[in-house]
Amino acid sequence: MAAPSTPAAPDATHLAYKNTDQLSVTLKEPTSFKLLYFPIHSSGATTREILSIAEAKWENLVPSDWEKEKEKTPFNVLPVLFITSQTNKDIILAEAAGVIEQYLAKQFRLMGCNDYEENLIKSFHSSTASLHSLHATTVAFIPDRDARKRAMEVFRDGPFRAWVTLHEKHLRDNGSNGYYVGDKLSLADIRTANFIEHMNLQTGGQALYDIINISPCLRKLCVEVAVDYKISRWRSSQAYKILTTATDHYFSDPFAPVSKL
Amino acid sequence: MAAPSTPAAPDATHLAYKNTDQLSVTLKEPTSFKLLYFPIHSSGATTREILSIAEAKWENLVPSDWEKEKEKTPFNVLPVLFITSQTNKDIILAEAAGVIEQYLAKQFRLMGCNDYEENLIKSFHSSTASLHSLHATTVAFIPDRDARKRAMEVFRDGPFRAWVTLHEKHLRDNGSNGYYVGDKLSLADIRTANFIEHMNLQTGGQALYDIINISPCLRKLCVEVAVDYKISRWRSSQAYKILTTATDHYFSDPFAPVSKL
Repeated sequence: MAAPSTPAAPDATHLAYKNTDQLSVTLKEPTSFKLLYFPIHSSGATTREILSIAEAKWENLVPSDWEKEKEKTPFNVLPVLFITSQTNKDIILAEAAGVIEQYLAKQFRLMGCNDYEENLIKSFHSSTASLHSLHATTVAFIPDRDARKRAMEVFRDGPFRAWVTLHEKHLRDNGSNGYYVGDKLSLADIRTANFIEHMNLQTGGQALYDIINISPCLRKLCVEVAVDYKISRWRSSQAYKILTTATDHYFSDPFAPVSKL
Repeated sequence: MAAPSTPAAPDATHLAYKNTDQLSVTLKEPTSFKLLYFPIHSSGATTREILSIAEAKWENLVPSDWEKEKEKTPFNVLPVLFITSQTNKDIILAEAAGVIEQYLAKQFRLMGCNDYEENLIKSFHSSTASLHSLHATTVAFIPDRDARKRAMEVFRDGPFRAWVTLHEKHLRDNGSNGYYVGDKLSLADIRTANFIEHMNLQTGGQALYDIINISPCLRKLCVEVAVDYKISRWRSSQAYKILTTATDHYFSDPFAPVSKL
């Protein structure tokens, strides 16, 4: 995995609707991936960590002028995942990070051991992704920094604390072993750890991180994700560190000129 | 399927984590379902329509005092789906309508013909569910009615129109046949049709419905969903009509005393 690079993204204005049996083979037998996303962690973080765990062949693509390029994505939003196989042209997965993450997690055995565990994992994944979205909608993009700090306090003392309480309960119910389901890493664990890291890079986020530090099960979950050998290797990379710096910089002023992306 | 009834909901405070192979059998061989949700359409609508299409044995459960009962749900939110089989105690699916809808849609063959189609359907489903959430977060619960109307205009002229444009494009790409994927009904079609009906019951929603009426592909989609024999039968039922009246009433004043739920 290289540092964020900027080869042009394939045109993804239209999705494919024909020969879907053949396209399904690509989903089952992918040879490499390209993730088109802004050069920050945020909604790209979990996909990048799954690809790292899978030791997949993948690269970051970064929009050079998003306002112009967004018309060339299926839903005018990022991330978009391009999936390459030996026999087909690239397949596009798009719309929500959740769709991409669930496909990759299933492909790389991070969705539990059976259908029931898969549904449990999807529930925790959805709960965390919803809270991330709520933060994005109600806090992250408030232009005035002081108003944003106040909104973050409301978010912290309302939905964030409620989420912590519920997730501590469920993690305790699974034996306080640092995993949501069973005794091995899943999509849900990775998504939650990434969300917590994401909060830590937000205006007023340190106070949320402090809450996690006195929440033993979520804290253990973050440790379990961090000590995974392949995730640890990815997080130690130069590419990851560049993304962290850029994420911190971006969310301290989300209204700086878009060109910096 | 009977009218909304109010038998007590099972305690769903804790999720099951043991014997998950056995619990997976229940997911694959369910005998009946109970949907715990408020007695309105909203985030219960798609689940109810899937269960109607499946001709499944199911019933509505309604909280009698939600503020007290929400602690007994896994994530303090509704809907919650209870799944019964011959051999196991009830299984709980919870957190987000999306998790429930995707499980039921897969079970009842509303997720396309292969993995690729399933992922397409998930993308459209996610796109529409996200817009529904955005409306709930930024419009539906603004206390002042005039301010809510203004927020609805911003929603209409921004994200709603953008969504219409994109979904018209994708529906055209699939041949303007009224389906997102292939030539048969899927979860994505049902979810979008329900979202459009939901908008029509909101403050200022008529103007959004008018936009759909001049958007040929989305309009055709709504027709295709409505003419499905089993959906049509469900929508003609007394239970459905009661839900429609209650939904209309609820969203005209979301801050009326909770007891009416």
